[in-house]
Amino acid sequence: MGKKTTIYDIAKRLNTTASTVSRALNNSPKISKKTKDLVLETANKMNYQQNKLALALKSGKSNNVGVIVPRIDSNFFASIIKGIEENLYAHGYRVIICQTQNNQNIEVEIINTLLKAQVDGILMSISSINLDTKNSFNRILQKQIPLIFFDRKANIKDVSSVTINDFEAGYMATKHLINQGCKKIAHLSGNILLDIFNNRFLGYKKALEEEGIEFNKAYVLKIRSTVKDGQNAAKQLLKLRNPPNGIFSSSDYAALGAIQEIKANGIKIPGDIKVVGFANEPFTKFMELSISTIDQSPVEMGKIAANVFLQQSNNSENTKIEKNVVLAPKLIIRKSSLKHPNE
Amino acid sequence: MGKKTTIYDIAKRLNTTASTVSRALNNSPKISKKTKDLVLETANKMNYQQNKLALALKSGKSNNVGVIVPRIDSNFFASIIKGIEENLYAHGYRVIICQTQNNQNIEVEIINTLLKAQVDGILMSISSINLDTKNSFNRILQKQIPLIFFDRKANIKDVSSVTINDFEAGYMATKHLINQGCKKIAHLSGNILLDIFNNRFLGYKKALEEEGIEFNKAYVLKIRSTVKDGQNAAKQLLKLRNPPNGIFSSSDYAALGAIQEIKANGIKIPGDIKVVGFANEPFTKFMELSISTIDQSPVEMGKIAANVFLQQSNNSENTKIEKNVVLAPKLIIRKSSLKHPNE
Repeated sequence: MGKKTTIYDIAKRLNTTASTVSRALNNSPKISKKTKDLVLETANKMNYQQNKLALALKSGKSNNVGVIVPRIDSNFFASIIKGIEENLYAHGYRVIICQTQNNQNIEVEIINTLLKAQVDGILMSISSINLDTKNSFNRILQKQIPLIFFDRKANIKDVSSVTINDFEAGYMATKHLINQGCKKIAHLSGNILLDIFNNRFLGYKKALEEEGIEFNKAYVLKIRSTVKDGQNAAKQLLKLRNPPNGIFSSSDYAALGAIQEIKANGIKIPGDIKVVGFANEPFTKFMELSISTIDQSPVEMGKIAANVFLQQSNNSENTKIEKNVVLAPKLIIRKSSLKHPNE
Repeated sequence: MGKKTTIYDIAKRLNTTASTVSRALNNSPKISKKTKDLVLETANKMNYQQNKLALALKSGKSNNVGVIVPRIDSNFFASIIKGIEENLYAHGYRVIICQTQNNQNIEVEIINTLLKAQVDGILMSISSINLDTKNSFNRILQKQIPLIFFDRKANIKDVSSVTINDFEAGYMATKHLINQGCKKIAHLSGNILLDIFNNRFLGYKKALEEEGIEFNKAYVLKIRSTVKDGQNAAKQLLKLRNPPNGIFSSSDYAALGAIQEIKANGIKIPGDIKVVGFANEPFTKFMELSISTIDQSPVEMGKIAANVFLQQSNNSENTKIEKNVVLAPKLIIRKSSLKHPNE
């Protein structure tokens, strides 16, 4: 390793003072967001690390932050983690990641594991809500360890969260399908106990209502976010006496499965059935029949979650600050849902 | 949570004895691999967890295992981790994951983090080899904590590893391109200091030699495993006076980028240029122009790495067992490299 980067090196590179750099790195309210972003970016590029030993002595902290996600094998969660790491690394924190595989027992166990490892904070996207997980969340709070939810949250007093407006996303996606001429729109949903899936469903329903389209229960299937479940759901929908001509899927993976199944039946996309997915996984763009989807700005979501954590852990008076950041979803229109000019 | 699953429940389900189940879970050599696999699978399905408190009292262990990978946002590493978790969870271990983002400073820091968190073992795929990382590996060994490499290994005495035969993989992929009629074959390589990339390159060279095809240095590009780098590499190759008609890429992401760039130039795949990638990322199968690739059996690789760890940590006499498992690669032929019958 070469000579360690100091705040003076960063200041020199940016033609500013060391005190500005130091303030920016410590997230001082006196420094503009633009400057903070620039300093952080430069610090990361130059491999800057705060002196962890000094920090630890000052604070008695481990400088490790735990991140819990349902699964790591989705670009969505991987990108959130990337955003979290970007904003925490320059502050001398290290990130340890655990996945629950959507299993509530593992979720409880993993929280114990991270508490035992003495993390300074837990940033998580929950897999389930029940008495056991709620008890675990409360144990984190009792230990005065900052807990921040992102994307999949539980509604707990004093706990901050960063989410996107899933209702709006469901509404936008469905409205778009209607604008492309679909009147029979199916919805592939998920575990409705989780806010994200319930809100997407409510947005879908709202768009139908607004357009005077009757809600059809047979068009709503609760499935897991997998290619396989998407295939099976499409099979079921195609068997209906009156199959849909539009599908809004709460998952890109399920959307992909549905598209594969529909095409395998010789039915055209977007000609006969139009499809919109959710999450903007990279493959949706790679496909020749690119898939319309909702972008959730996951890197940004991770960065904001990290910043909320930094604010809470810098708050020496330990005041409870609950901060709920809601990001706006973006509809990305691609081939799978686009009306042909002659249609 | 309902009643906890016991080894008696598992035995009942499998119509065997509790002692067989217990032996299988403790990886006893008296039990066949088939039985072990069946018991593990059933234990996972039934959410069985060994009594961790009892285990910890008996052993003084944390029951946490650290896994370090260059990046989590690739299906390859995510699948290895899945395999590791599958085999470790039923044994009462919890897995904490860290990514280095291919940054050697982060790699060193993260090893410290895991040691501080008192993990019982570290399973890792390395990002870099230099004095700092080597010192870190040695520190793990000095603390008598089992260290197991998977996929990307350093050659260190007494350290076990699970890899695939990358030389064979490079040879197979190149030979296949030659059999499909390619004589001008480019190779998108990676950091040649890492065995995996060097061995794939050597396999590529060997196949050319065997067929009497002259090695052309201009056809070998060392790039990162990203779509962007694949695009740039293709740009460079297409500018050559004598561009290649086959590309063997050490990365599916780079292969995808190359394919996008080649198609954007109106050049046909597989008609004009045939492409083979590496790692069997799911998108290679999803594409309408599906991408030929090498499958590395990542879930299996993870399971074996976990088993090697279990053997080492159960070895009470602390004998040093170095075990090097080398898996066979599988060539998966898809559209991107397949000769047209009339060609």
